[in-house]
Amino acid sequence: VTSDSPVRLVTLADAVFAFALTLLVLEIRLPADTVRPGDLGVTLARLWPSFLSYVISFIVIGILWINHHGMMQLIDRIDAWFIYLTLLLLLCVAFLPFPTAVMMEYLMDPHERAFAVAFYCGCVTLTTVAYVLGWWHAARDRRLIASHVPQETVRVLTRVYVPGPFLYLTATLLAFAHVALSLAIVVALGILYLLPKIRSQLSQSARPG
Amino acid sequence: VTSDSPVRLVTLADAVFAFALTLLVLEIRLPADTVRPGDLGVTLARLWPSFLSYVISFIVIGILWINHHGMMQLIDRIDAWFIYLTLLLLLCVAFLPFPTAVMMEYLMDPHERAFAVAFYCGCVTLTTVAYVLGWWHAARDRRLIASHVPQETVRVLTRVYVPGPFLYLTATLLAFAHVALSLAIVVALGILYLLPKIRSQLSQSARPG
Amino acid sequence: VTSDSPVRLVTLADAVFAFALTLLVLEIRLPADTVRPGDLGVTLARLWPSFLSYVISFIVIGILWINHHGMMQLIDRIDAWFIYLTLLLLLCVAFLPFPTAVMMEYLMDPHERAFAVAFYCGCVTLTTVAYVLGWWHAARDRRLIASHVPQETVRVLTRVYVPGPFLYLTATLLAFAHVALSLAIVVALGILYLLPKIRSQLSQSARPG
Amino acid sequence: VTSDSPVRLVTLADAVFAFALTLLVLEIRLPADTVRPGDLGVTLARLWPSFLSYVISFIVIGILWINHHGMMQLIDRIDAWFIYLTLLLLLCVAFLPFPTAVMMEYLMDPHERAFAVAFYCGCVTLTTVAYVLGWWHAARDRRLIASHVPQETVRVLTRVYVPGPFLYLTATLLAFAHVALSLAIVVALGILYLLPKIRSQLSQSARPG
Repeated sequence: VTSDSPVRLVTLADAVFAFALTLLVLEIRLPADTVRPGDLGVTLARLWPSFLSYVISFIVIGILWINHHGMMQLIDRIDAWFIYLTLLLLLCVAFLPFPTAVMMEYLMDPHERAFAVAFYCGCVTLTTVAYVLGWWHAARDRRLIASHVPQETVRVLTRVYVPGPFLYLTATLLAFAHVALSLAIVVALGILYLLPKIRSQLSQSARPG
Repeated sequence: VTSDSPVRLVTLADAVFAFALTLLVLEIRLPADTVRPGDLGVTLARLWPSFLSYVISFIVIGILWINHHGMMQLIDRIDAWFIYLTLLLLLCVAFLPFPTAVMMEYLMDPHERAFAVAFYCGCVTLTTVAYVLGWWHAARDRRLIASHVPQETVRVLTRVYVPGPFLYLTATLLAFAHVALSLAIVVALGILYLLPKIRSQLSQSARPG
Repeated sequence: VTSDSPVRLVTLADAVFAFALTLLVLEIRLPADTVRPGDLGVTLARLWPSFLSYVISFIVIGILWINHHGMMQLIDRIDAWFIYLTLLLLLCVAFLPFPTAVMMEYLMDPHERAFAVAFYCGCVTLTTVAYVLGWWHAARDRRLIASHVPQETVRVLTRVYVPGPFLYLTATLLAFAHVALSLAIVVALGILYLLPKIRSQLSQSARPG
Repeated sequence: VTSDSPVRLVTLADAVFAFALTLLVLEIRLPADTVRPGDLGVTLARLWPSFLSYVISFIVIGILWINHHGMMQLIDRIDAWFIYLTLLLLLCVAFLPFPTAVMMEYLMDPHERAFAVAFYCGCVTLTTVAYVLGWWHAARDRRLIASHVPQETVRVLTRVYVPGPFLYLTATLLAFAHVALSLAIVVALGILYLLPKIRSQLSQSARPG
């Protein structure tokens, strides 16, 4: 019996990421009775919190997927614990459409928006905790890391991933003080988390082979 | 004409498992009109039966998937009956979001919770019956088992799988006496069913190669 | 430029079949206000038309998938028209959850059940038309058939597939005379369509290699 | 570290396309209370705007998928920007069920149909912008193009793709003047975009090998 290859786990993860991305749109709902004749444009324009929430959530889940994609390329075997931690990550990812729906509905409600955004950011924080636990399990003593991956890459990624949950937790707490800033940080963190990828891409093309 | 390889059946099964996992979240619904100003936190907290049902169902389907994943690694060909039994399994798996939704809605209702949990456990029981039938068909006379798999592994799995439906049936009947105990058993059974996997993982790393 | 391999089309088809299978369950809905205390069992029992429709539709789509699976194993290249005909088939398959939902809601309504079942059977008929057109395009002059497939197999499948739409059309028309008989024929046709598969399976194991 | 292969991105894209195709059907809804006894046929017939919208949207997304399928066959590596542009494309594709639902609901409303169709066409236009940006990034200096692809093919595709968004924008603006013409153009554009595919298919079979 050989050890498991990650192929089928990657297939399941891809499918869950893709479904979570696509289910987001089902949470956007036209208000049933509020459209007066000739008013459809106004009604759609008033849905902007839903559209904004859709775009933010798509970016967050999409970036998680890009990072997971990059991480799985460094891993060439899996064990039981990595399967459980991946399922925990997928449990969180598959849950994200719900806090997105909550955010869509309450982003314009002055009494509830802070809590709605904090709930959303809190769920993203838990998701990054599951993500970091998975990486930490894979990277410790290079347990699941492919032999061709330089130790420097593993070290850099660990240093980049571990602060993630704390930064997202900060965005969560900030939601009670300033909703827009909190959401801006979530998106900005996403872009920051893409930077290493871009940089490595740049350095790769700089080096031969 | 060569016999079928299980690749495409595995793809379909993965997609159905992933989809059933992801659809669970659509069953969590915010109550429409009960939110008073500043009350969103309370409203979300009162949804805990939905969150609990989501987590339990995700664990149950996730563990089924892990076991199915392990089982399909022992199989290197399929026949018509195995396709039908796999479709029967997928029929049950794809149905699970409905009893999950029933459980979400009635877990706090003192008159209905017993029946709701029994209904959920009963559906899980039927799912494990389909699972065991599939394994039984594959394992009998090593009909679909890859030649490199030791007969000892097949025997151990059969001995582990066959009591499953009876244990889940017990949890189903217990729901009428004690709801929380019944759910605890469902989760505990899941963890027990992961143990052989962990043990084999441990023994694998203990042995060379 | 080589001609297309069917791999990616098969992936898309598998995904659409899997989603259509899994979406069926979303159409089963608990009646909102009709549950009296202690009545959940009765309420669920009254949903039997939904459960029956779910099982019938799962069988129909599952059998279509099994046959499509078998057909794609005979094909080793695709062309533009085969892609369009496959998309037409998927358009029909992805639509089936709607007539299933109609059937779930009206199967017990004495005034509407005939039309609801005829609508469902009619949609299945159109689906088999798309299926047969795809096969007919692939099989004519062995356009897309792999060279190792004996011409006898192609001829047998054509003779088996072509009457399909006419038989399902008969079931559609029969719905206006006898609803249960119509549904029984749809399920029976499915089982009949599996028979060649079983028979070939049997003959395969009978022959050496 | 080798550069990324497009395999996993193709898997995600396939899943999102398949899912968006399949979710369309969930937007078709039976009117709740308007069915009088024996009226189901009439009620279903009055849903023709929903059926038409379903078919148009299935064709649009299906043709996008066919073209994306063709494009990805010319690409044998990906970089970070191509991943982001593909995610942008998927963000648009996954959003299309919402404007489809809007069109389903308002296609028969004399005051809103123009805006509803313009909204739908506008979303399709944005989708083609994301599509063209992705191709443009891949094709510039043959950045991601496989070496076996003749430069002539790349040039032809660029010349064919770039006018796309402008043509769809024209359809969008036309919706305010003539709804049916606008929708006819969207479908006709789809068929036009398939023509190069058909032509290349024809020329392929004309040439040896």
